[in-house]
Amino acid sequence: MTRLTFPLPGNEAFASALAAACGGECGRIETRHFPDGESYVRLHGDPAGRVVDLVCTLARPDAAFLPLVFAADAARELGAREVNLVAPYLAYMRQDARFQPGESITSLSFARLLSSTFDRVLTVDPHLHRHPALAALYTTTTTTLHAAPLLADWIAANVEAPLVIGPDSESEQWAGAIAARIGAPHVVLAKTRHGDRSVEIAVPDLSAFRSHTPVLVDDIASSGRTLMVAARQLVEQRLRQPECVVVHALFAEDAWSALLPLFARITSTDAVPHPSNRIALAPLVADALLRGLHD
Amino acid sequence: MTRLTFPLPGNEAFASALAAACGGECGRIETRHFPDGESYVRLHGDPAGRVVDLVCTLARPDAAFLPLVFAADAARELGAREVNLVAPYLAYMRQDARFQPGESITSLSFARLLSSTFDRVLTVDPHLHRHPALAALYTTTTTTLHAAPLLADWIAANVEAPLVIGPDSESEQWAGAIAARIGAPHVVLAKTRHGDRSVEIAVPDLSAFRSHTPVLVDDIASSGRTLMVAARQLVEQRLRQPECVVVHALFAEDAWSALLPLFARITSTDAVPHPSNRIALAPLVADALLRGLHD
Repeated sequence: MTRLTFPLPGNEAFASALAAACGGECGRIETRHFPDGESYVRLHGDPAGRVVDLVCTLARPDAAFLPLVFAADAARELGAREVNLVAPYLAYMRQDARFQPGESITSLSFARLLSSTFDRVLTVDPHLHRHPALAALYTTTTTTLHAAPLLADWIAANVEAPLVIGPDSESEQWAGAIAARIGAPHVVLAKTRHGDRSVEIAVPDLSAFRSHTPVLVDDIASSGRTLMVAARQLVEQRLRQPECVVVHALFAEDAWSALLPLFARITSTDAVPHPSNRIALAPLVADALLRGLHD
Repeated sequence: MTRLTFPLPGNEAFASALAAACGGECGRIETRHFPDGESYVRLHGDPAGRVVDLVCTLARPDAAFLPLVFAADAARELGAREVNLVAPYLAYMRQDARFQPGESITSLSFARLLSSTFDRVLTVDPHLHRHPALAALYTTTTTTLHAAPLLADWIAANVEAPLVIGPDSESEQWAGAIAARIGAPHVVLAKTRHGDRSVEIAVPDLSAFRSHTPVLVDDIASSGRTLMVAARQLVEQRLRQPECVVVHALFAEDAWSALLPLFARITSTDAVPHPSNRIALAPLVADALLRGLHD
C-alpha cells in the first residue's frame, strides 16, 4: 500500500518531489471557482485505505484555507486511512497572544480548525514566538522539522569563507547552530521592531571580517525590512556584498525587488515557491513521514 | 443585558439596522492584513456575559471565512454567553452531493466548520436542493427565515397588476405563495441547465397577460443567465417590460450590467449589499433572534 500525495494549487512541484521521495503516488486536485466565488474541489486519485498527504504551503492562507479543508474532508470521506497536512510554511504563528483588548488570537483559532481537519500537521521552522512548540496550539499530532542543517550545508558548499549573521536575538540559537555545523564564525544583530514595516538594527563592528562573505540567515523573509536594514549597514562597514539565505521566501509586497540589488544572491528553501528557491525540502519531509516522526 | 451585534467588513449597514431592531448595541470589528496576507481581527465592544450576533453575509465566502471565525472565537474567549452567526446569504449550498467521483461535498465541510464555531446559524432562504433543511447539514442550531412575504408585500405596494413568474420548477411553491398572498396570478417556467452559465427556458403562451406586469421572482441572482433568458422570452411575447425581484443579489461577473437593460426595475432584499436593495431584512431577523426561533 503506497502513500498518496495531493498538491493544492501552486504546490505541484513540491508534491511531486515528495511523492517520489516517499516512493508513493502523486494525485491531482481539480479546483475552480463558481461564478459567485465558491470553490469547487475534486480529487483525482483514490484515497481508499491509504495514507493521504495534502501539500499546501500557507503563504496566502485566507484564500487557500477552504479548498484545503474541502480536499481533506473529501479524502477522509473517500476512505483515507489517515489525512495529513504537509504545510512547509505554516501561517498564523504571529498573533499568539492578546496584545490589545479585543484582539483575536488567530494562532489558536487557526490551530483549532486545522486540528479538527487533519490527523497530522507537518511543517518546517514555524515562526513560533511565545509558545515553545506547536503542541501548545495544536491538538492534533504535529511534526516540526528544521531546515538549519540544510541551510548550513548549502552555505558550506556555495559560499566562500562565510560569516553567518543572525538578524536578531531570536535567531541566536539558529545562526549559532548553522555556524557550528560548518565551522564558520557567526554574529547576531540587535533588532528593534517599531511596526509591521519598520525596524531598527544595531550592527557591531565587523571590520575584522572583511575577508569573509557575510551571510544573513533568517527563518522568514516577509516585508524584508529586517534584511534590508541589515544589508545596508554591512555595506556601510565595507564588508563584501552579503548573501542571504532564508527558509520561507514570502517576500510580501515589493520586498523581492527591493532586496535583490542589496545581495550578491538570495537563496531560499522551496517551502514557499519562489525564484530564489535553491534548497529542496522534500527529502527532509519524506524522511519524517516515512519514519513517522512527531513532536 | 443587551445583545451585542458586530458587522464583519461590508456588513455595517445591516448590523446597525439589526442592532437597532433588537434594541441592542452595535460594536465594531477592526480588520487588516499583515504584509504576508494574514488577517488581523480586533473586537471593539465587550462581549462578556452577552449574546453576540456576528453579521456576515457570505457572498464571497473564501476570503471572508477566516476573519469570521477569528472574530467568533475571540467573542467566545472574551466571555460571550452565546455566539451567533447572522448570514443573510449562506454560501456553499450547491455542492451537497458527490456528482462525480472524488468531488468534495463542500456543503458538508462548510457546515462542519461553521457548526464548530457558532452556537446558532441564522440565514434567509438558503439555496437548498437535495436536503430538505439545514439540519441535514448543520449540527449546530439553525434558524431558516423566508423572505417571500416581504417580496410579496413589496410587489403589492410597488407593481401594477403583477403576474408573478417563477423561473423553474424549484420556484413553484415559492412563486405560488407570493402570488397567493397578494391575490395575483402566477406561472412557473421550465428551466434546463447545461452548465454554470448556460440555461434553456421554456415559456408557455402568456398572451392573456398583456395587461399585467410580469414579475420574475427568484431566491438568487448569480450568473443571471436564468433571468436573462426568461426576460428575453417575455419581450418576444410582447408582454410589458418585466420587473425582477430576488432575495440574494449576487450578480456575479457581468450579470448586473447585462440584466439592467432587460428589466423595468431589479429589486432585491439587503441580504447581499447591492444597488438593487430595496427590501430590508433586519426586522425579520431581529424578530427571530428576539423570539429565539429555530428550525
